[in-house]
Amino acid sequence: MKALVTVMPKAGVLDPQGKAIGHALSSLGFAGVADVRAGKVIELELAETDPAKAKAAAEEMARKLLANTVIESFRVEVV
Amino acid sequence: MKALVTVMPKAGVLDPQGKAIGHALSSLGFAGVADVRAGKVIELELAETDPAKAKAAAEEMARKLLANTVIESFRVEVV
Repeated sequence: MKALVTVMPKAGVLDPQGKAIGHALSSLGFAGVADVRAGKVIELELAETDPAKAKAAAEEMARKLLANTVIESFRVEVV
Repeated sequence: MKALVTVMPKAGVLDPQGKAIGHALSSLGFAGVADVRAGKVIELELAETDPAKAKAAAEEMARKLLANTVIESFRVEVV
């Protein structure tokens, strides 16, 4: 069973990587980009076959390792 | 209009970050994690209001800047 953990900086937290991407896009001539936030996505291939248990396990992994919950929020999708 | 660009290493491309996360998860006692791949997600806030045009613009940005299409694949979702 596959779980996708998406980790994004929380609203209000400075995101220098997102800012840099925004500047690079406008130097390349892309107009109309108001804001850019950069986060990460971790694709986990789990042995667990029950979707609810797989989601709970992935959330536990996100809290313990994948996300810094002080400055980042995460969401888990099971696919 | 918001576009989410998800960039992942292509299948077969070595992913040391994913491997490191996998090792860290097993040291923390998480069993049953077969494989981990780490990618990035870029959230773009676009001025464009037409979903098809916003998607096309985000794909162009991904090809030109956000993804290295030699080793990475990307997908774009408009939300």
